[in-house]
Amino acid sequence: MPEVINLNDKFSLFKEHWTPKVVAALNDIHFKVAKIEGDFIWHQHDDTDELFLVVSGEFEMQLRDRTVQVTEGEMIVIPAGVEHRPCAKTECHILLAEVAGTRNTGDVGGDLTAPEEDWI
Amino acid sequence: MPEVINLNDKFSLFKEHWTPKVVAALNDIHFKVAKIEGDFIWHQHDDTDELFLVVSGEFEMQLRDRTVQVTEGEMIVIPAGVEHRPCAKTECHILLAEVAGTRNTGDVGGDLTAPEEDWI
Repeated sequence: MPEVINLNDKFSLFKEHWTPKVVAALNDIHFKVAKIEGDFIWHQHDDTDELFLVVSGEFEMQLRDRTVQVTEGEMIVIPAGVEHRPCAKTECHILLAEVAGTRNTGDVGGDLTAPEEDWI
Repeated sequence: MPEVINLNDKFSLFKEHWTPKVVAALNDIHFKVAKIEGDFIWHQHDDTDELFLVVSGEFEMQLRDRTVQVTEGEMIVIPAGVEHRPCAKTECHILLAEVAGTRNTGDVGGDLTAPEEDWI
């Protein structure tokens, strides 16, 4: 049955950066919370768009042709196949939406790859 | 190309209640902003789950077997086929996610039906 999901309660359950945790499913889409700080890697997701909504703080979304700042109360959708690199000077809390099973490091993989189905 | 969407800027563009406006697309999902106040109608969406995220204020989600309160920073997913009725004692600003083309009044229709593809 439907339950209420409190985002700040979910953020209080973990401390690590760049490890999205699933908090809800909508059809084939997973909604994930993540704490980010520092520079991620360039990557893309070939099979899904990806939405980033800032719950607190701010981060920089680097695209190959420009960089945009995304602040609390703002969101951005990265279309499938578009290379991007999120970076945050200070800790930022985000809500992500993307197809279930999407790997955080996309086509690249590597050390920053997090489990894809880590529910909290 | 990806653009930054500021939710409060979007809310400032309209005043009416119960008229979801599309602000972003993620694959086949539309993200919509809505202002709600008063009692909506009982309805269901047979073909899509529906997510409600409270951006400001609070509302009551009535289900046939219970009622839950959803407050700023909280969200709830109503599974496809589940009857629900959102009600807000005072104006509440929400972000919705559901399959593109979903009618706000679901299987019921009627006077509160809003355009399905009203982008702002």
